[in-house]
Order: sequence, then structure tokens, then C-alpha cells
Amino acid sequence: MPQRKNAKGAQPANPFFWKHPCLPQVSALMKTFSIGQRPSGIAEMAKEHLGTGGKRFRALMTLQAADLLGVSQRSAIYWAAAVELIHNATLVHDDIQDGDTTRRGRPTVWKKHGVGQAINVGDLMLMVPYQILSCADFAPAQLRQLLGAFAHRTVETVRGQSLEMTLKDNLNFDRDTYIQALRGKTGQLLALTVEGPLILSEVDPLRASQIASGFEALGIAFQIYDDIWDLYADKGRGQVGNDLREGKISALLIAHLERCPEDRMVAAEILSKPFEEVTTEDVAFWERRFEHSGAKAACETWAEEFVEMAVTTVPDQPLRGLVEDVATALGLKNLKERS
Amino acid sequence: MPQRKNAKGAQPANPFFWKHPCLPQVSALMKTFSIGQRPSGIAEMAKEHLGTGGKRFRALMTLQAADLLGVSQRSAIYWAAAVELIHNATLVHDDIQDGDTTRRGRPTVWKKHGVGQAINVGDLMLMVPYQILSCADFAPAQLRQLLGAFAHRTVETVRGQSLEMTLKDNLNFDRDTYIQALRGKTGQLLALTVEGPLILSEVDPLRASQIASGFEALGIAFQIYDDIWDLYADKGRGQVGNDLREGKISALLIAHLERCPEDRMVAAEILSKPFEEVTTEDVAFWERRFEHSGAKAACETWAEEFVEMAVTTVPDQPLRGLVEDVATALGLKNLKERS
Repeated sequence: MPQRKNAKGAQPANPFFWKHPCLPQVSALMKTFSIGQRPSGIAEMAKEHLGTGGKRFRALMTLQAADLLGVSQRSAIYWAAAVELIHNATLVHDDIQDGDTTRRGRPTVWKKHGVGQAINVGDLMLMVPYQILSCADFAPAQLRQLLGAFAHRTVETVRGQSLEMTLKDNLNFDRDTYIQALRGKTGQLLALTVEGPLILSEVDPLRASQIASGFEALGIAFQIYDDIWDLYADKGRGQVGNDLREGKISALLIAHLERCPEDRMVAAEILSKPFEEVTTEDVAFWERRFEHSGAKAACETWAEEFVEMAVTTVPDQPLRGLVEDVATALGLKNLKERS
Repeated sequence: MPQRKNAKGAQPANPFFWKHPCLPQVSALMKTFSIGQRPSGIAEMAKEHLGTGGKRFRALMTLQAADLLGVSQRSAIYWAAAVELIHNATLVHDDIQDGDTTRRGRPTVWKKHGVGQAINVGDLMLMVPYQILSCADFAPAQLRQLLGAFAHRTVETVRGQSLEMTLKDNLNFDRDTYIQALRGKTGQLLALTVEGPLILSEVDPLRASQIASGFEALGIAFQIYDDIWDLYADKGRGQVGNDLREGKISALLIAHLERCPEDRMVAAEILSKPFEEVTTEDVAFWERRFEHSGAKAACETWAEEFVEMAVTTVPDQPLRGLVEDVATALGLKNLKERS
């Protein structure tokens, strides 16, 4: 999932995209279903996490796609709530996996309530979306297609998350595997936002899946840019080099090792250093190294290729405009200005 | 979920129940869907966990219910695989939560692959069932009902698991809350095994849910007996008093504190002791105490009431036989002999 905490400074204003009259209804659905009929500890914890907000980016994408495709808002809000909840579930579990102690400026669920309950809260928000789908007013014939798409892509999200963690434990990673991980952990939920409205607008499911894959590509492009921004960001984005400090595999590192395989051992050393032992000099060293090897430029080209792929995969109308809005919102490219 | 590791000695032979010609097909479905189309680390981990076996109790219940209700095996195997996978997902996450290092005689997923990947493996096995449901040949009109039941009860399972963990942190528990936790974490998946076949046999969904709730009661009865067995088991069941050693809230403790509220502080003390510091004398002390206060007898009566509830909730035919078989298999009562 996009590590949006690292990308604040990179998001240009795109006010039309960030608002939608149905968003409050989506948030209400998310809360109602997560809380359930009885007050309980887990309901409170889920409410607390959902109360931290977030931009509801995936819900907005769903609502925008539904508008463009002429899908009823009544159906779209259920799909939007389901996708957004899965996203939040992955955040809660991610925070345990990464040991992150804050999210959206508040303590993470595991930090506040312990790992065990955070697993439960994540599990709840993985399951509730299916309850939401069963309660929506989808036509019976469409429900199977919608369920199939939803289940397939959420399974792929988990696979991607796991694959990325495998990469960290193993320096024998390669570009294809890295992309596969990004396509899973970030791409699938972005694709799902539009796949639901496409199926609801009676586009053939296979075609819906193909079009949606354009949004997978946007997710991949975003993650590659995010890796670049982490090291070369403009002022105002906080400390640079957090990926290196945290020992994360990044697109920069992969591109660099393609060019300088002899650096593998030095790379392994920096990745295995504890966070606080990585110095500003270490970060500056790799900044220069990635620039000199051409890794930075290669990653920029690489990300641009995925944006291009998104543009060519999504047909001109009516969803091309959404590709442009999402790309702009994610700080990828102002496609409108470029063309 | 039933802590069957503690109940080995309590299961009388019930050979007809433990075999079903479709079980290999169910196991094959579970593996195929969990592994997916590409070999990967998470697929291997899931395969490894599923390879540890287990009795596939919930799958067997589904298959038996389907036979009794005249539901096609072709549909039943999908439902059986889905329920059994959810059960396995909860085991993987449970083991993290309880810090258990072995399961079915092998290292648990988190012990072998770390907490992060074990969260992923559990998440995968929570999601894959929905993919399985979307691929089954259920009639479109039934899919919504099946999905609704499945999602509702899996959500309740998570809520129950969370509630039980809340009890541990808080000595102000009461019997109703404890039962609610058991109904969630153990009852829901047992109920789900028969609810699917009931819906598939075109029983009205509301009636299907009512009948299925009889199997919730069996799950509760089993857990209460399991608490008793843990302290008063016959020889051959290993060390007694593990619940006390692990600081678990048990039915015995709840019934005892109802009778002797003045023991609350002493109880809190034993529950907070580390596992290895609880002595055989401590265990013997509570064994006697629960017997003298009448807590043991009360729990036996209490469990029997839930078995009775199961019998009266499930109509005579065709599912009453299954109630009897399951009760016997779980070591609850040989209902046939009693009647």
C-alpha cells in the first residue's frame, strides 16, 4: 500500500478529486459495519483506528469511477466502503509487521492495544467488507463477479505483502520480483476501486479486469517514485533516507545493483544496520552512489513507463480522466499539462 | 475454536464420523486455492501449515450435513473447504496471540517464519475462502445468502476471539460475557458448517440460522467441558492445570468467583503468575477449591444445559443425528446411549 506518510510534500493540490458528496456515507458504512450491533472492545478499537481518518483515497477513486461510468451511488458507496476497509486492515497489520508506532499522528493499534488485539482488529476489517458486499443491492448475477474480483485482488494484496517481506530477508531480489510485490501490495486495491464500478456498469468482467490493471500500474509507479522521494525529496518532507535506515529494499537499490553488482555486500551491510546507527553520511553516500550509477535516472524512467502503461491500458473515455486525476493526486505527473 | 490439543483423551471412537469419501477433494481445494497460480514463499508457508493436517472436523461436519440434507457433494466441498480454511487461519493467528510454539507436533508458523509472515499466512487463509465461494457452482440467488451467513459468522468469530482476550486483561468478567466469547470464537464456525448445507437445501435463511445456532451451543458446551478436563482430566492427557498456568479465564474460575467473590484477589494473583512459576501445589489447591465451592459441578450442569439446548434447537430430522455424532465426537455425551 502507498506509504503516504512519506509522500506528503509530493501531492499537488487537486481539490476536485479530494471531495465527494457521498464520502460521509461511505465513512458511515465503514463505521456501522465495523462496530456491529453490540458495543465491545474490538468495536471501539476499530472505531478509534477509523477515526484517525486518512484521505479515503480508495473510496474517492471508487466514487469518481462510479460517477464517470454512470453507476448508482447507492451501489458505489458499498463497494467504496469495502475497499477502504480492506486498505485499513492492511495498515493495521502492516504497522505490526514494520514495528511502526505512529500512524496519522496517533499511536498505532498494536502500540496502544498490543499485537494480539491489533491482529484481531485487522482481521475484523478484512472480514467486514464481505459482510458489506452481501448487504449491498447488487444484482444477483453481478454479485458473483464482484465477489470474485474482490476476493481475487485482496488475496493478491496479501501475497504481495508477503513477497515484499521475503525480499527484505533475501538479497537475491530482482526487478521483476520487486514489481510483482508492488503490483500486489499497492496495485490490487487501486485496481479494485475501478473494477467494481466497471462490473456494475456491465462491462464484461474480463475487460473490467484488463482496464483495472491500468490502475495497478499507477500504484507501481507511485511506489517507485516514493522510493526516489524518500532519498531525494524537496525540503519539507522530513528526514531523507528512511528506507535505507529501515533496511527496506527500494527501486533505487535494485536499479543500482543491476548496474554495480559488486556493491551487493556493501548494500547488505547498510540494510542490516539498526535504524539509529545509519548516519547522515551513510545516506549521503548512497544518494551520490545511486546518482552516479544512473540508478536514480533509471528509476525515474521506470516509473514513467508505468504511468504510460496506465494511460495506454485505460481507454480514452470515460476513465482516462480518472487516470490523470489519480496520477496528479499521487504526485506522479501532471498528465494534462504534459499532453 | 476448540482447543483440541487439550482434549485428545476425551474423544471416544466414532469412526463413521471421522471419514468421508469427499474429504480428499476438500483438502485438495484448500491447497489449490491457497497456493495459487505461482509458487511463492507464502504459498509454501500455507501449504506447510495445511500439511500438518488436523482432523478437518469442520469439513467433515459440512460433508455430513450435506449428505443428510441431500445437498450435492459438488457444492458441499467448496463450502467445507472455505470453513476449514477460516478455521486454520484463526489457528495461525491464535498461535501468535497465545505465544504457542507448537501445533500438531510441529513448530507454529510464527515460530518458524516470524510474526510478520504468520500474520500474512493467516490473512491469506481468511481471504481465500471468499475466492472459493465465488468459484463454487452455487445458484446466483443462493450466493448472497451463503455469503451473508459466511461473512456474518466469520466476523463474529473475530469478535469472540477479541472478547476472550479482553476478559484475560480484566477480572470483572461474568458468565454471560464468557459465553458470548465462546459463542463467537468456537460456536460460529461450527454453526457455519451446517448453515451452508441448510441454505443450499433451500431452507429459509432465517430458519437455517436458527437451526445452525444449535451447533453454536455444542461449541460452547465443548469449551466448558474442555475447561473442566484441563484440570480434572483422566490420565493420559498430559499435565493438568495448563489453563491456570497460562493465566486463562476458565468456566471453573467464573463459576467459582460467582460462589466465592472474596477469592477474586487470590485468583488474580495466580492468573498473573508466569507459567513456570505456577506449582503443582497451586494447581492442586484450585482443584480442591473449585470442587468445594461447587464450581466444578456447576460447570458440568452448565455444559449439559448447552448440549440440551443443541438437542432442542435442532429439529428431529435430518440433522439431529449430526448433533449426536458431533457431541460424541467432541466427547460431550453419548446422547444415543443416554436416551
